[in-house]
Amino acid sequence: MKIGLDIMGGDFAPRATVLGAIAAYKALEPHQKLVLIGDKDQALPILEEHNFSPENFEFVHATQAIGMGEHPTKAITQKPDSSISLGFKLLKEGKIDSFSSAGNTGAMLVGAMFSIKTIPGVIRPAISTVVPKLKKGYGIMLDVGANADCKPDTLLQFGILGSLFAENILGIHNPKVGLMNIGEEEEKGNLLMLATHPMMKDTNSFNFIGNIEGRDLFNEKADVIVCDGFTGNVMLKLAETFYVLTRQKGFQDEFFARFNYEQYGGSPILGVNAPVIIGHGISSPEAIKNMILLSRSMITTKLIDKITSAFK
Amino acid sequence: MKIGLDIMGGDFAPRATVLGAIAAYKALEPHQKLVLIGDKDQALPILEEHNFSPENFEFVHATQAIGMGEHPTKAITQKPDSSISLGFKLLKEGKIDSFSSAGNTGAMLVGAMFSIKTIPGVIRPAISTVVPKLKKGYGIMLDVGANADCKPDTLLQFGILGSLFAENILGIHNPKVGLMNIGEEEEKGNLLMLATHPMMKDTNSFNFIGNIEGRDLFNEKADVIVCDGFTGNVMLKLAETFYVLTRQKGFQDEFFARFNYEQYGGSPILGVNAPVIIGHGISSPEAIKNMILLSRSMITTKLIDKITSAFK
Repeated sequence: MKIGLDIMGGDFAPRATVLGAIAAYKALEPHQKLVLIGDKDQALPILEEHNFSPENFEFVHATQAIGMGEHPTKAITQKPDSSISLGFKLLKEGKIDSFSSAGNTGAMLVGAMFSIKTIPGVIRPAISTVVPKLKKGYGIMLDVGANADCKPDTLLQFGILGSLFAENILGIHNPKVGLMNIGEEEEKGNLLMLATHPMMKDTNSFNFIGNIEGRDLFNEKADVIVCDGFTGNVMLKLAETFYVLTRQKGFQDEFFARFNYEQYGGSPILGVNAPVIIGHGISSPEAIKNMILLSRSMITTKLIDKITSAFK
Repeated sequence: MKIGLDIMGGDFAPRATVLGAIAAYKALEPHQKLVLIGDKDQALPILEEHNFSPENFEFVHATQAIGMGEHPTKAITQKPDSSISLGFKLLKEGKIDSFSSAGNTGAMLVGAMFSIKTIPGVIRPAISTVVPKLKKGYGIMLDVGANADCKPDTLLQFGILGSLFAENILGIHNPKVGLMNIGEEEEKGNLLMLATHPMMKDTNSFNFIGNIEGRDLFNEKADVIVCDGFTGNVMLKLAETFYVLTRQKGFQDEFFARFNYEQYGGSPILGVNAPVIIGHGISSPEAIKNMILLSRSMITTKLIDKITSAFK
């Protein structure tokens, strides 16, 4: 197994990424190899500083890097030697089994769709995010930004993608799928949700429990929260505010602690032909480590094969 | 001045509403009369219990009440003697200067649009909510539920309505208007926001500061937050969760204290021909009192006249 990591991605790269790789190494089994993609010359001194042998990793040297503010499509095409472009090349060629980066979100999305491409039958891949649940454990919300405008059949598919993730990665049996809406009743909602609700009600593809509301994000009603990428993105950023605020104000709490994005590593792109994870721009070594371990879970559970089968 | 209050509206009516009216009475000037609309026979024992003279109020007896779960349009037409129907009748006839209720939100919206009607030039009225700001004071977000689907020109008008509220009621000079979106850049967003942004950029009707994101709800970027009613409703309910959670967990904090909906009383419907406020279903006496005081502000500042002039 080869787990690919962009060591140039994120606000604190390459230090945070290399330190994250070291931390992950200790949790990996011998046959689970980390492939670090980026500027090897920058990585080596950090490893040396920590008395960590470079032999423990494989390296793919990249002479370019895509900045956080660069235009995704332009950057991907104009920087073929960037760590993100190279990562997707390796992933497409099967030389790595997963690719993750805390770098440019748009470039990761575009790169995935241009290289490994969408799984046949999937209309649009979704960026998903893990959300902490009040009682215990986690749920998943999707889409959180890949598709600002969605159609009902796209949302229906997000229910399938999210269910498979919840079942295989979060270990939730027969996960409950909720449609994010502005009322519990079937006749509530905007045009999109009014059209999506009956399709979800009719499906045998997942366990639809009906509409949920903004107040249900953290409770036990749904394990999989389906929404368009606009709504999901706004909710995610609002929820992050609260994590930041409780931290700033020194509130200590088990639930708010589980809010910490570092614990779940990153946001998987679901619906593409390989495990791809986008990390938070501010990823710390701990976040990078957990992104690597999430990549491993996506490989070992054969999540992509299961998604592919579901859409056959 | 006559301030109309539905004493049958809300989960704890008529006790909470009558006690709220008593509390408000002490803050009102002699010429500011409260008109209590509802079942007088239920109100009198509560007043007596508190040694409060019914002479301090005017009463309009209502033999019916609209329940929280009733279908708005049906309820309004089939219950002409309900407190909400009567309230709007009085408001339309000019016998009261404002009307507020913590009852059925839909019935309040439908009632307002059927009776006092939309201000000429306003495409769609919006339900607005006051949001606490981290540093100090409050901002306003609209729409939070009246219009699940919006068009760009409707959002543009929300900017005008929100600005006038922020200026007149919240006392903010030249309020900053932000468009809730999924990125700061002009080219970010769903189709609705992509179409709305240039219209807001071109307007002279308010001080547009550009796109804002979910994380900006409580910071100083914008005083007026414009969004469609679907997004606003989801955000509002998510934000309420945090208030509830911090309370449950016993976190004490000046900011989270200002989250308390009781402090701002209710959600004004902006864009109709009179001051109308919808209170939270769980309104306490404190919330009712502040809803009454907010009604008074909307009357004394002549907010409706100012909105009417702006749309001429």
